[in-house]
Amino acid sequence: MIQAKGYAAQDAETDLAPWDFERREVGPHDVQIEIQYCGVCHSDLHQIKNDWFPGIFPMVPGHEIVGRIVKVGDHVKKFKVDELAGVGCMVDSCQVCENCKDGLEQYCLEGNVQTYNGRGKDGVPTYGGYSNTIVVREEFVLHISDKLSLAATAPLLCAGITTYSPLRHWKVGKGHKLAVLGLGGLGHMGVKFGVAFGAEVTVLSTSASKAEAAKALGAHHFVVTSDPAQLKAVKGSFDFILDTVSAEHDMNMYLSLLRTNGTHICVGVPPAYSIHPFSLLGGRKSVAGSGIGGIPETQEMLDFCAEHNIVSDIEMIDIKDIQTAYDRMVKGDVRYRFVIDIATL
Amino acid sequence: MIQAKGYAAQDAETDLAPWDFERREVGPHDVQIEIQYCGVCHSDLHQIKNDWFPGIFPMVPGHEIVGRIVKVGDHVKKFKVDELAGVGCMVDSCQVCENCKDGLEQYCLEGNVQTYNGRGKDGVPTYGGYSNTIVVREEFVLHISDKLSLAATAPLLCAGITTYSPLRHWKVGKGHKLAVLGLGGLGHMGVKFGVAFGAEVTVLSTSASKAEAAKALGAHHFVVTSDPAQLKAVKGSFDFILDTVSAEHDMNMYLSLLRTNGTHICVGVPPAYSIHPFSLLGGRKSVAGSGIGGIPETQEMLDFCAEHNIVSDIEMIDIKDIQTAYDRMVKGDVRYRFVIDIATL
Repeated sequence: MIQAKGYAAQDAETDLAPWDFERREVGPHDVQIEIQYCGVCHSDLHQIKNDWFPGIFPMVPGHEIVGRIVKVGDHVKKFKVDELAGVGCMVDSCQVCENCKDGLEQYCLEGNVQTYNGRGKDGVPTYGGYSNTIVVREEFVLHISDKLSLAATAPLLCAGITTYSPLRHWKVGKGHKLAVLGLGGLGHMGVKFGVAFGAEVTVLSTSASKAEAAKALGAHHFVVTSDPAQLKAVKGSFDFILDTVSAEHDMNMYLSLLRTNGTHICVGVPPAYSIHPFSLLGGRKSVAGSGIGGIPETQEMLDFCAEHNIVSDIEMIDIKDIQTAYDRMVKGDVRYRFVIDIATL
Repeated sequence: MIQAKGYAAQDAETDLAPWDFERREVGPHDVQIEIQYCGVCHSDLHQIKNDWFPGIFPMVPGHEIVGRIVKVGDHVKKFKVDELAGVGCMVDSCQVCENCKDGLEQYCLEGNVQTYNGRGKDGVPTYGGYSNTIVVREEFVLHISDKLSLAATAPLLCAGITTYSPLRHWKVGKGHKLAVLGLGGLGHMGVKFGVAFGAEVTVLSTSASKAEAAKALGAHHFVVTSDPAQLKAVKGSFDFILDTVSAEHDMNMYLSLLRTNGTHICVGVPPAYSIHPFSLLGGRKSVAGSGIGGIPETQEMLDFCAEHNIVSDIEMIDIKDIQTAYDRMVKGDVRYRFVIDIATL
């Protein structure tokens, strides 16, 4: 076994703390990565707090992982030692179902294996990227360009693909008015991709103070949702809303901002959406959901980012400051993603 | 003015009763129809009871109207006296907005004029089809074939187009598995159209007693939603669910029956849908709404029905029995639509 160290929650009530554990040996199809940076996703906190479902403890969070390959198995074809590599939210899936064959491993009909807080096919719990090393099947490892800041690339593995995938799926681009709801880790990537794809992008935010930041990211317009006059001016105007908000919000109000045939795409996880039928019937509107993206599309997104010089805006932290980062993240006090420098572990 | 008689609710607390009122004279672009049959829609009852919004009283319900043309205005081009004609849920719209120009008058950006419980552009309340005659602008009058039972054609004007339009919009047909949720006035038309379009149709119902009836309508399969084993067997299997239910129901359970990328199309009006984000994110699923259909598509639907011999299954009633019909409709005790024989007025 490989000796690994990381930060783990021992249970849902305890803060993260250093923890030594074991990773499996590098099998014939495995890649071992020395982790250099790991992004901090809001879902890390949800999972260690059992907000969504009972977690598997000790839990080492982290699914925005980048680093350098230190070992590959005998049958590994796509990767070599010393190359940069990344790992996102999944580390395995059945690989034979209809969805896996279509490159939609995130919707694997047998259920995929999450990077942490999951169990591999061998039944062993998975441990994430708040650690110094990880061993992953090559099918779930991504190539990372050396053209971009490596630390700022880490959040692409979750926040990036989560916003890229639905914008591609619904073919958002030139001629479309796209609203991005919420300007956090996901939202700021939604703005960057929306702009890159040629859409006219409006940021919808409860906080007027984010106007400048939105423009700096490339957004064409900014609407403070607490101002009825600003809201009225954009009523019935958007083709798409990319909803990145994980707090409760008034879906019927937002649906009124969509044009006829408009689509409200949810990528956040609030408790539940309450939707009045008339909000949908009144203009043949849709509320859709999208979960991360498949492996081929994640690679496509990483390549697109390398080509268009797109990374996440990040604030680097020492791993010992993770609790402070969580506290600030909950308050929305981060522009826009914390990334752990794993060298501080 | 034209003297008309009908059945009206004087307020939300009083039963329908005979009422004499006036229709406008036939203007240059108007068509006057002697009404022969009018379908009874659940929304008639919702509106006279102020369930959705405060109504305009006295209220003469009815928006599934068929009859014979008795007079046309000087500039009317599409209709002649003695022809059969129909009127659905709308009698006017701005006719110049983007949606009206696209034949989507139901989504008129200025708001269309509802056949009853609305106000015309002149501010005068509109009165519906529980009456002996109606005057409507020719743009909102439909041609009705004499090949079909006239009485059984009436419900096509609302129940028909409400189910036809979304199935066409989402291109439901060969190779698709379509579930129709609820087997009432809307649902039974959804089954007929789904089958006619070549889909594999399953009726989802809480009531096992409807199995035979569903098969008789052409449905290929029937699932009792109270039976966990039957539900499990269809989990993740449908491309589309056509949801005709206006009572509260568990959307998350129904969403679990959709395949990846599946669409749950709502045409009923329950109080509100409560949807957990994971029900959407877990398979890139959509919940969409659709309201009736535009005038060109309503004509297309009527022509399709004439060609394919599709009508509604109806139970004819005397207008004096309307309250009994409402009582039975609320209990779901009708196969599948009451139609008023206006000769009994």
